[in-house]
Amino acid sequence: MITALGVDPGLRATGYSVLQGDRQGCRLLEFGVLRTTGPEMAARLGEIFSQIEAVIREYPPQVMVLEDVFAHVIFPRTALHLAHLRGVITLAAVRAGVTVETLTPAAVKRALAGSGRAGKVQVQKSIARLLGLGVIPPQHSADATALALTALSRRGVALRPTGVHALARA
Amino acid sequence: MITALGVDPGLRATGYSVLQGDRQGCRLLEFGVLRTTGPEMAARLGEIFSQIEAVIREYPPQVMVLEDVFAHVIFPRTALHLAHLRGVITLAAVRAGVTVETLTPAAVKRALAGSGRAGKVQVQKSIARLLGLGVIPPQHSADATALALTALSRRGVALRPTGVHALARA
Repeated sequence: MITALGVDPGLRATGYSVLQGDRQGCRLLEFGVLRTTGPEMAARLGEIFSQIEAVIREYPPQVMVLEDVFAHVIFPRTALHLAHLRGVITLAAVRAGVTVETLTPAAVKRALAGSGRAGKVQVQKSIARLLGLGVIPPQHSADATALALTALSRRGVALRPTGVHALARA
Repeated sequence: MITALGVDPGLRATGYSVLQGDRQGCRLLEFGVLRTTGPEMAARLGEIFSQIEAVIREYPPQVMVLEDVFAHVIFPRTALHLAHLRGVITLAAVRAGVTVETLTPAAVKRALAGSGRAGKVQVQKSIARLLGLGVIPPQHSADATALALTALSRRGVALRPTGVHALARA
């Protein structure tokens, strides 16, 4: 049984998703969005670090997955701010002894929707189907779920629903 | 009496410098270079975080100073890696209740060498003179010292040597 934590860092909202699975199938343990309140970057880094630490404590994962930061071009200022966030999220995993892995968007799309050029909606529908969810998860959580699901798939976990899903938190 | 910690993050070597001062003058408590060993970025983030935490524990500063990350253009990949480092360094300060401040290179040069366009060597010589050091500190430590010294100066600390300097660590 492997547990994977997917994280999608964002300046206002960081999505996360915890999945667990084995050769029989996989299930969603929790997904949600971590929000920060203050206007100060430094304080926000502290908030996100503590919240990721709390998720790791509650559902100890074997692997944490982030999107490859070099995969897409965005505004330099945003990229640098995101890299600060990513630094402290990575640190939370390292300090808990959790392996950190990065995946390109194309690798995620290939694994979940059969093509590296699949659209966002197509990937979201795949996630809902593969996990047997009745609804499509909200954007941030969906991206985090896609990362975790791909990491599990690469470790031999079957991409089909098993057991009962926990409720998602707002 | 104010204590300032200057940090100059680098992928291989992160310079730091701790200065203390008041209206009478200032002195160097310690400067040095934090090095990381492993090839993995994630592990390096953990190492730097722990080492900055240790420096903060030993010389609790009122303020930590970093160079403004948006001040200069470097290779995007390097900038992003540095931003990860900067994220965990900032986190170490935030968790210890230390204020984080950023300064542009021009502001540092203006404060220490009288002109925003002063050269690196000129700034290094100014530091040695203002602190009454017999030698010019090595590059990484010098940049960190310049940041801390500028922060002290902006808080009304006199830029002249006082007391005895501690020995620098390698």
